[in-house]
Amino acid sequence: MRHLLDTRTLSRDDAIRILDTAEDMAAAQQREVKKLPALRGKTVVNLFYEDSTRTRISFEAAAKRLSADVINFSAKGSSVSKGESLKDTAQTLQAIGADGVVIRHPASGAPERLARSGWIDAGVLNAGDGTHEHPTQALLDAFTMRRRLFGSGAGVSDASGSRGRDLDGVSVAIVGDVAHSRVARSNLWLLNALGAHVTFVAPETLLPYGARDWPVKIHHSLDAALRDERPEVVMMLRIQSERMHAAFFPNEREYARNWGLDDARLERLVDEAIVMHPGPMNRGLEISSRAADSERSTVLEQVANGVSVRMAALYLLLSGEREASI
Amino acid sequence: MRHLLDTRTLSRDDAIRILDTAEDMAAAQQREVKKLPALRGKTVVNLFYEDSTRTRISFEAAAKRLSADVINFSAKGSSVSKGESLKDTAQTLQAIGADGVVIRHPASGAPERLARSGWIDAGVLNAGDGTHEHPTQALLDAFTMRRRLFGSGAGVSDASGSRGRDLDGVSVAIVGDVAHSRVARSNLWLLNALGAHVTFVAPETLLPYGARDWPVKIHHSLDAALRDERPEVVMMLRIQSERMHAAFFPNEREYARNWGLDDARLERLVDEAIVMHPGPMNRGLEISSRAADSERSTVLEQVANGVSVRMAALYLLLSGEREASI
Amino acid sequence: MRHLLDTRTLSRDDAIRILDTAEDMAAAQQREVKKLPALRGKTVVNLFYEDSTRTRISFEAAAKRLSADVINFSAKGSSVSKGESLKDTAQTLQAIGADGVVIRHPASGAPERLARSGWIDAGVLNAGDGTHEHPTQALLDAFTMRRRLFGSGAGVSDASGSRGRDLDGVSVAIVGDVAHSRVARSNLWLLNALGAHVTFVAPETLLPYGARDWPVKIHHSLDAALRDERPEVVMMLRIQSERMHAAFFPNEREYARNWGLDDARLERLVDEAIVMHPGPMNRGLEISSRAADSERSTVLEQVANGVSVRMAALYLLLSGEREASI
Repeated sequence: MRHLLDTRTLSRDDAIRILDTAEDMAAAQQREVKKLPALRGKTVVNLFYEDSTRTRISFEAAAKRLSADVINFSAKGSSVSKGESLKDTAQTLQAIGADGVVIRHPASGAPERLARSGWIDAGVLNAGDGTHEHPTQALLDAFTMRRRLFGSGAGVSDASGSRGRDLDGVSVAIVGDVAHSRVARSNLWLLNALGAHVTFVAPETLLPYGARDWPVKIHHSLDAALRDERPEVVMMLRIQSERMHAAFFPNEREYARNWGLDDARLERLVDEAIVMHPGPMNRGLEISSRAADSERSTVLEQVANGVSVRMAALYLLLSGEREASI
Repeated sequence: MRHLLDTRTLSRDDAIRILDTAEDMAAAQQREVKKLPALRGKTVVNLFYEDSTRTRISFEAAAKRLSADVINFSAKGSSVSKGESLKDTAQTLQAIGADGVVIRHPASGAPERLARSGWIDAGVLNAGDGTHEHPTQALLDAFTMRRRLFGSGAGVSDASGSRGRDLDGVSVAIVGDVAHSRVARSNLWLLNALGAHVTFVAPETLLPYGARDWPVKIHHSLDAALRDERPEVVMMLRIQSERMHAAFFPNEREYARNWGLDDARLERLVDEAIVMHPGPMNRGLEISSRAADSERSTVLEQVANGVSVRMAALYLLLSGEREASI
Repeated sequence: MRHLLDTRTLSRDDAIRILDTAEDMAAAQQREVKKLPALRGKTVVNLFYEDSTRTRISFEAAAKRLSADVINFSAKGSSVSKGESLKDTAQTLQAIGADGVVIRHPASGAPERLARSGWIDAGVLNAGDGTHEHPTQALLDAFTMRRRLFGSGAGVSDASGSRGRDLDGVSVAIVGDVAHSRVARSNLWLLNALGAHVTFVAPETLLPYGARDWPVKIHHSLDAALRDERPEVVMMLRIQSERMHAAFFPNEREYARNWGLDDARLERLVDEAIVMHPGPMNRGLEISSRAADSERSTVLEQVANGVSVRMAALYLLLSGEREASI
């Protein structure tokens, strides 16, 4: 792997390699000294054109655990959305010898543009671009599913082979504002590659254009979806109030009643089902507090697993030999 | 010690352990290579909900001198003062494996809430919360007093015992806007624990509610306080102009005349007296330039001692074994 | 060297020592592990009173490559332009034990004020002050000229002596908004020290007051300058539109026609000529895209060389013994 731009083009093998490596990283984080020397002397730049403290510090912690030097570059608010400026910035990163660039950008496709431009030799990691993708979020979600559904040794090969390396046959419902969610898109492609069955559950107004051509089932009723699909994974998306209104819900109560994972729906989940949310949650809106704090909830593990998965991605992209650059 | 939240509940023994450890840290800072490996592999997050470059870089320098990785998280301006958000943030810090969290917050009690929440395993260091406390400031002040009044070997046990380990019998006057000063509060509790006698010197309007129930003398005249208490330590607080007016002073000249440490008052101090200020100073207002720059002034030492004291606190909180965390 | 404040007072020997050391640093950057231990345990503070991400991350990368700890201090927007505040800030930097301070400031002379104040023992590096100087930019420009005109081994002494250690006899044209350009000023002094012949090419309204007393030729026509001076180095400066108007050009097309390095002028350069620009470029205004992307262009090398030159400056200023400080 040279870059991590999306999950749509990520091969099943590369995805599993990241998940397996993340198991090693998670194990290393349990040691007394959590720091590994793997990326010593490498420079990782966090290039954030949007605020996202959670994602930024997760990548920053991951890079520092691998002994990389981290340089934060917050470009929010400056006039850097124009093409020329991204080029200027890229050339600066190239010039300072960046080995990896973690980019969050409001424009879909910006990370790919950076990677394919020839402006830099660095490995590019997409940390969220517009409504396009957020691949490390999908990877940490898959990592969390694997561990929860198959145990924390999942993916580790043993005498019996490689049980739980992928998510073959797992049923996943992704619920809510799918239209604006890069998390939903990245999960869809990755989950398909790993053999899971994905259902989008949303009102028509919150479904992305073109979703009917994607490898996904669609439900317009959360209750029907829970009943018919019997999902082992229920992934609730964050709703923003302006989008709730765009979906023709007059108020939060209405939205929660139709699309929230409330206590009654929580009761109806199949035995082994887990409840996921990329955070931060709107408690009482898309998810009830009981659901958020229940045994089924993986919300905290998702965040913790994010560091392990990002360590894995950084390690796989940056630890090898890369071409020499000026 | 697990957290450093305040000086009100800090035991005398723990306080002295921090001061003695700070002596070791100060000695280490005199070496060619100032860096110690003590916190290698540990992650310290600076979680600042208020701007305070001085305090932030003091903690950042302290953590880096101990070889910790530092992640800065400036939350100012974002909508993070609500309870849910502090929880979300805490869980992110927990998830990335923070070993220590240095928190500055406009709400009194936020650091304690974070520490007692069960949201994180990290050691919490209060870097100033509302008008409540600023314990490392009080510790660096006490460290400065010990060194100035008893010599820089103070606290180091020798044949004669432990001369100057505490501040037994030292008379300290804290002057000015006590009502809004977390520095004054933290000093009061710590100085009492160390055996000093504290006097607040302020107009009634700048005294905190309830101060009459605290173990402190109160004076409403600076001149009378200097004459009657003969303080060996005169600690001037920073006044902000809107508070000067709230204290019924029509202008700066009036305030300085009544409550400033001017040249005449400087002359009247007892021989060994030192002049302290947490900075930044309003020269000509609460302190004259001659007082600020005199031999008695400890202003620069206070800032320098801040790094040693914060190294000591970080070391004592983070270097031991802590419970495993998710 | 104790500080790097300007090139006007930088001796030829010190300039060449920086350039030669930068060659060593550039060589080290080609290695697998780019990190050098030279400044381990040292603390470098980036004190930026103006935004300049490019310069800040260049210095940050340079310091981290030398294993220094870096603390970023963005003072933009805060009320720190007053004298008292710069002093307060300096004392804080002194107190935390800063070994080097990289300062960018809107006021000409602020770095020198900081260095000469006695407030700090740290080495001060000017990263751009008002319209005064930007010495590391001039040094990276000279480094780039040396490498391009004399080969990348320039400055390395060999059997034949020290060919290409300086820029003796090289003709350099600096074109455009010289009046507001600290880059132009720093280049002028350094290039003179290194034996080059400098020509400013600008309309009268964009020439600095007093330039006629400086050791520089002046041309009011770019075409005449290219014809008469036959420069081996053409350095285009960035123009800002409000200044373009102040120079009596009604629009960009007019300015570009008179003062831009367009394709026709590019053709007329002497064989070995190189085209420089400190970036970011206004393509189509002061420089055509063909000129910017031509073989003659050194724009990307300039940025890359910036890290090597800043490593050299930090190394020479900070690696030796400095006086002990409180």
